[in-house]
Amino acid sequence: MLVKTFSVFSKNFIKYVPVRRLSSVPTFAKDYLQVKRGPYKTLDEQDVRFFRTLLEENSLIEDRCDLEKYNVDFLKHLRGCSPLVLRPRTVEQMSKILSYCNNNLLAVCPQGGNTGVCGGATPVFDEIIVSTEWLNSVIHLDETSGVLVCEAGCVLENLHNYLNDYDLMMPIDLGAKGSCQIGGNTSTNAGGIRLYRYGNLHGNILGLEAVKADGEIIDCMNTLKKDNTGFHLKHIFIGSEGCLGIVTKVAIQCHPKPKSIQLAFLGAQNFTKALKAFKTAKQELGEIISAVEVMDHETIKFMWEHTDTTSPIGDYPIYLIIETSGSNEEHDQDKLNKYFQKCMDKHFVLNGVVTSSPSKSEQIWGLRERVAENFYKDGYVFAYDISLPLENYYDIVTEMKEYLGEKSHRVFGFGHLGDGNLHIQISVQKFSTDIMNYIEQHLYKRVNELNGSISAEHGIGFLKKQYLPLVKSEANMNLMRSLKRVMDPNGILNPYKVV
Amino acid sequence: MLVKTFSVFSKNFIKYVPVRRLSSVPTFAKDYLQVKRGPYKTLDEQDVRFFRTLLEENSLIEDRCDLEKYNVDFLKHLRGCSPLVLRPRTVEQMSKILSYCNNNLLAVCPQGGNTGVCGGATPVFDEIIVSTEWLNSVIHLDETSGVLVCEAGCVLENLHNYLNDYDLMMPIDLGAKGSCQIGGNTSTNAGGIRLYRYGNLHGNILGLEAVKADGEIIDCMNTLKKDNTGFHLKHIFIGSEGCLGIVTKVAIQCHPKPKSIQLAFLGAQNFTKALKAFKTAKQELGEIISAVEVMDHETIKFMWEHTDTTSPIGDYPIYLIIETSGSNEEHDQDKLNKYFQKCMDKHFVLNGVVTSSPSKSEQIWGLRERVAENFYKDGYVFAYDISLPLENYYDIVTEMKEYLGEKSHRVFGFGHLGDGNLHIQISVQKFSTDIMNYIEQHLYKRVNELNGSISAEHGIGFLKKQYLPLVKSEANMNLMRSLKRVMDPNGILNPYKVV
Repeated sequence: MLVKTFSVFSKNFIKYVPVRRLSSVPTFAKDYLQVKRGPYKTLDEQDVRFFRTLLEENSLIEDRCDLEKYNVDFLKHLRGCSPLVLRPRTVEQMSKILSYCNNNLLAVCPQGGNTGVCGGATPVFDEIIVSTEWLNSVIHLDETSGVLVCEAGCVLENLHNYLNDYDLMMPIDLGAKGSCQIGGNTSTNAGGIRLYRYGNLHGNILGLEAVKADGEIIDCMNTLKKDNTGFHLKHIFIGSEGCLGIVTKVAIQCHPKPKSIQLAFLGAQNFTKALKAFKTAKQELGEIISAVEVMDHETIKFMWEHTDTTSPIGDYPIYLIIETSGSNEEHDQDKLNKYFQKCMDKHFVLNGVVTSSPSKSEQIWGLRERVAENFYKDGYVFAYDISLPLENYYDIVTEMKEYLGEKSHRVFGFGHLGDGNLHIQISVQKFSTDIMNYIEQHLYKRVNELNGSISAEHGIGFLKKQYLPLVKSEANMNLMRSLKRVMDPNGILNPYKVV
Repeated sequence: MLVKTFSVFSKNFIKYVPVRRLSSVPTFAKDYLQVKRGPYKTLDEQDVRFFRTLLEENSLIEDRCDLEKYNVDFLKHLRGCSPLVLRPRTVEQMSKILSYCNNNLLAVCPQGGNTGVCGGATPVFDEIIVSTEWLNSVIHLDETSGVLVCEAGCVLENLHNYLNDYDLMMPIDLGAKGSCQIGGNTSTNAGGIRLYRYGNLHGNILGLEAVKADGEIIDCMNTLKKDNTGFHLKHIFIGSEGCLGIVTKVAIQCHPKPKSIQLAFLGAQNFTKALKAFKTAKQELGEIISAVEVMDHETIKFMWEHTDTTSPIGDYPIYLIIETSGSNEEHDQDKLNKYFQKCMDKHFVLNGVVTSSPSKSEQIWGLRERVAENFYKDGYVFAYDISLPLENYYDIVTEMKEYLGEKSHRVFGFGHLGDGNLHIQISVQKFSTDIMNYIEQHLYKRVNELNGSISAEHGIGFLKKQYLPLVKSEANMNLMRSLKRVMDPNGILNPYKVV
């Protein structure tokens, strides 16, 4: 069966629901973390005239109201005050913009779909916003190799839809796919639900084109799976959050769209047993696993209390969702049924349900997907995106509960177990910077001690910059700064972010 | 069925057979490409005394005979004349060695298993060889996540054997696995037979530790699938062939060992039909494909004439080998049989055989594996490792035949079609630099024009350095040089290589 409702399964849009919104007027980023403006030139009429000669008229946005959506972040948490958005239509225009800004010491905030959640894509002061939204053409698709070449501003969902006609799909899927752009995905090494199966963008981006701060175009537009010629420059731009260059074009490895999608929802006695069920899945389901998610009892209970969702299997301390995607429905069903029976026989799980029905699958995914949009019902919620080695994956939830005691309402643990990626969410009565600092200083210290990551998918951006030196050695920080100096000696690209 | 003879399937050791050997005494590298020695200090007794105080006695090799195997490359094609090999046992020793060399302007040639085929791992003049062979401990294996942490000097085959006990396997497999080291694999972004299925090392190396030219240790020892904290420094070291730092430790994502391996050997009317059969395989076999190889008639015919191999299916212009690896034998057989039938029905293939028998599979792989070791029977053979977009993949073979005319005996085309990686081999009566230049100047120019890669797996090293500017823009070359200056301002690391 060809599952036509494929796009329904957007399993992590939850992260993009603005649960952290403090008020209807976002805080100025500069005040939020008390940052000082860098020694950049202030945009003047002569600069604007230059950009007008370079670009088509509607490529510039100067109107205060129109600027709003570029100046405010996706969560409506932070705002900058850029007076100008530039939307080049060609890499040559991009090159000339950056060259001019570099020569005139004008700070630049590169922006894709502006869906980042760490403030990496919005200006802090008056940086000129350089948007990739009009670099939005699909250039070429090789149907046999599955390699898609397109411009950076292509919206992820548009690429999904484009590929659908060729029975192909993108190797990356995000909740923000309706707005986020492939260039921004690349610049942030965006993760998402398909990472377990297809790996991250360092593996899937075969080639890219980027523009350095001085306007120089770096052409790494390779469409080959194997190319070992010289230093692998493209990786400098992947995940560097627009601080080392602006990505303008990518070649990306796409994959055949699965013909069969199956789902198992399993209840286990504790996390250790759930981990054994996961390990068994790797052995028994191997090549067809496409997602391994975990949710704790606190999370599910909250959902039952506050939404119309129901459990298909009753009450258990830990739940697993295992999804398979394959090329043969009968085979996949057979594998999944046998796997479930094995887990039951070995008492790794206590109960479960296996389904290939899209409506039942949707109901199960609903439990996982609708978590964050309902958390606000429990007060103000601090949401964190961390990775941990599997042996310590769930301990941090128990530990944070003990650490916080009555300071928090609840601590919820759920996430992409398959990737070691935990979303730990902490609800409190109301927001205060005191409680935020109390949580973050302990959480990030512990995550670091456990060899985890304080940002699994979301990057450092503006909001986590202060914590980066906590988790990186002085030598690593120095090397990052050296790289920044080489790539952007005047520091015009995305200042106040990452390093 | 658990295939116990897994290690038998080393499908590309062929590349490491010394088909290009010119004589029993390898040429001095410096004379081969007429390179001038850099302004480095010559090692003196005081330097050696320093290294003796730093390292255990047997960590130094100074004896001329013992130095031989470190000074001569794997193909016995090139030699350097290093007077000293250093074999640190800890990263701290590595750090002190490099710091001393950097301060005293002593050139260094980093070396792993010395199995490179472009001269990247052997000295050109008197560089001190710093070998990772005694950094050879397995540090940790997380059986659930499949993440292995080990030192750089671990031999790939030893890691395979170690993982075998845990029903896991490395994501990389090479013909040179008995000698090559994981640190060298990382530094060269080595490819091999499993790349089609598991991707390259940028995706599979989760973390690494490396030492910069000045001795500073860069710790990126992450074991997580998702970590977006700061610039992604580890990728600077992957594939940079020891020119930007020496890798001392890695964390690598390993995969469950397949329970079922199946093979199809197919004959097609022409390359276009073979490509259609490949595309169909992607759709029908999807997640279980583990290798897609191609061989042309010239290659197979030569094998029949010069070896005891026989064709299981008779005479066809193009042959495909498709291997599957999965977790369920019955399912995999069913998929492969149906796939074969579909290809026959659509006339994408004219004949074929499908087998799960290890002995029959070995016989088929033998045809592919033993190609290079027999080519010498046709005179001197120039062997090239290129990538091309699939639409142009085979054209280059036809074109080179026309271009060379009677200058060559034969032009053979075979390779990893799944990766777009072609091994084009050209036999001539005897070696001359004239014919080499005649071939290479045209071949590399055409590969570049077709957006291919002049080095798919083997890197640039020493031998292809002259061709790098042909295939990279001035901006890219400049950026590579800037990176080199930042990472190694005195240029002590692997001089005369890559850039």
